[in-house]
Amino acid sequence: VGRFLGVLEYDGTGFCGSQTQPGQRSVQAEVERALATLNGRPTPVLFAGRTDTGVHAAGQVIAIDLERSMSGDELADALNGLMARDVSLREASPAPQDFHPRFWAEGRRYRYRLLRREQRDALRDRSAWHLATRLDVPAMQAAATVLVGRHDFGSFGRPPQGDNTWRTLRDLKVEPDADEIVTTAEADAFLRRMVRIVVGTLVDVGRGRLSVSDVMALRDRGAAPAAGAAAPAKGLTLMAVGYKRERLGYGAGDGEQYWWSSEPLAGAG
Amino acid sequence: VGRFLGVLEYDGTGFCGSQTQPGQRSVQAEVERALATLNGRPTPVLFAGRTDTGVHAAGQVIAIDLERSMSGDELADALNGLMARDVSLREASPAPQDFHPRFWAEGRRYRYRLLRREQRDALRDRSAWHLATRLDVPAMQAAATVLVGRHDFGSFGRPPQGDNTWRTLRDLKVEPDADEIVTTAEADAFLRRMVRIVVGTLVDVGRGRLSVSDVMALRDRGAAPAAGAAAPAKGLTLMAVGYKRERLGYGAGDGEQYWWSSEPLAGAG
Repeated sequence: VGRFLGVLEYDGTGFCGSQTQPGQRSVQAEVERALATLNGRPTPVLFAGRTDTGVHAAGQVIAIDLERSMSGDELADALNGLMARDVSLREASPAPQDFHPRFWAEGRRYRYRLLRREQRDALRDRSAWHLATRLDVPAMQAAATVLVGRHDFGSFGRPPQGDNTWRTLRDLKVEPDADEIVTTAEADAFLRRMVRIVVGTLVDVGRGRLSVSDVMALRDRGAAPAAGAAAPAKGLTLMAVGYKRERLGYGAGDGEQYWWSSEPLAGAG
Repeated sequence: VGRFLGVLEYDGTGFCGSQTQPGQRSVQAEVERALATLNGRPTPVLFAGRTDTGVHAAGQVIAIDLERSMSGDELADALNGLMARDVSLREASPAPQDFHPRFWAEGRRYRYRLLRREQRDALRDRSAWHLATRLDVPAMQAAATVLVGRHDFGSFGRPPQGDNTWRTLRDLKVEPDADEIVTTAEADAFLRRMVRIVVGTLVDVGRGRLSVSDVMALRDRGAAPAAGAAAPAKGLTLMAVGYKRERLGYGAGDGEQYWWSSEPLAGAG
């Protein structure tokens, strides 16, 4: 009967990633399984972004085609009752019939949590990368600065098939927060594994293995990414996806042009 | 060769509780398994407090008897290498030979996280109790106030065998924090299930099922606890245990009389 925009949260630990893969447990398959029960027949669900095994989401955006008349709240109630506990729909609202969460997206925000202390922490084992090494945070911040802007990020990730490697990194922040170092990134779109390779590179700077000018050289090289530099998946969370309010049919919103699927740093516990 | 004080963290989800029970996976058994490998023979580990199935810890205190010469850092490195990922030793330091984490404890601090929003959250499914109900927070705060002090808490929990039910609740705070309501409690000691029954009672007040004077009546009744009022275990974390600095052989510490095993609200992510 209609298309809905849904905001999806998941703990990536128990999934092979967002996208369905034969014989594995994916987020997509879990949502589609619940939706099939509701619709009485298989119904594909579209995702804004693909996340890898172990990567979490606090603001993934999906398109849900519903074959019966329900409000957004009722749809969320029903899916949350049907899905496993490691995936949840925070909210759902009616969307234009041609809404496409990936093609319509104007921006994505990710967060990466680094736990910097001597010993690992059982309570953050699924959500942060533990590093006992001392890190030079100001150097990491300086390196982050040179990556912001429109660049060929070919050294920092692979494009979807047939696409180019130019992306606009609008914001990249490295901020100490108690015993963590939190990296937040916003871009029009990211290459595959790009946030993890960027964080891995920043950590190499923090460790003194790379200089800021090495990072500038990598940025300008535009070649295929060097292996092994990617930070572990578990520290990464897709925080939010942004859309033009007008295109979603939303009101002016205090002059804000964009609607984001979650607050800049809200969500993940 | 010596006794160590260790600060232990765990995600309680996968454990039957802190204490060893036949045929089940306990935190104590996991620590003792690792320590047996280190010592070359079974060695009992003492805990400051007993936590139930599903209850977490960010500052549990244990006594570890080590049969070989090691620094505290080396002991923590070794145990963290040997234990499962859902339990970690944040630090270890030499303690007096007669140190007993339970009998020496002068206070305990717990935290309870309530998630108050329409839909459940996959990312906080293990660490917060989700309640879609509207709650009257000022009423909960008023009810918390009347519980502070020295009372017979017989209506709020069971004592260890042979013990009485008088406890001093030094502090009980109910504080909104983004989409959560966080309750923190400090007492000389708690009865079994006491924090969960207190939180369950405060939620009944927030829902309008109990009044503040009902809570005063429960406080003054001192009878066995009513069944069913306990909040779910997963929202609860043992945050810290406090000891007299002098007794542990620690320095004066800026005039502070007590040493706590973790900061008031640090730890759990």
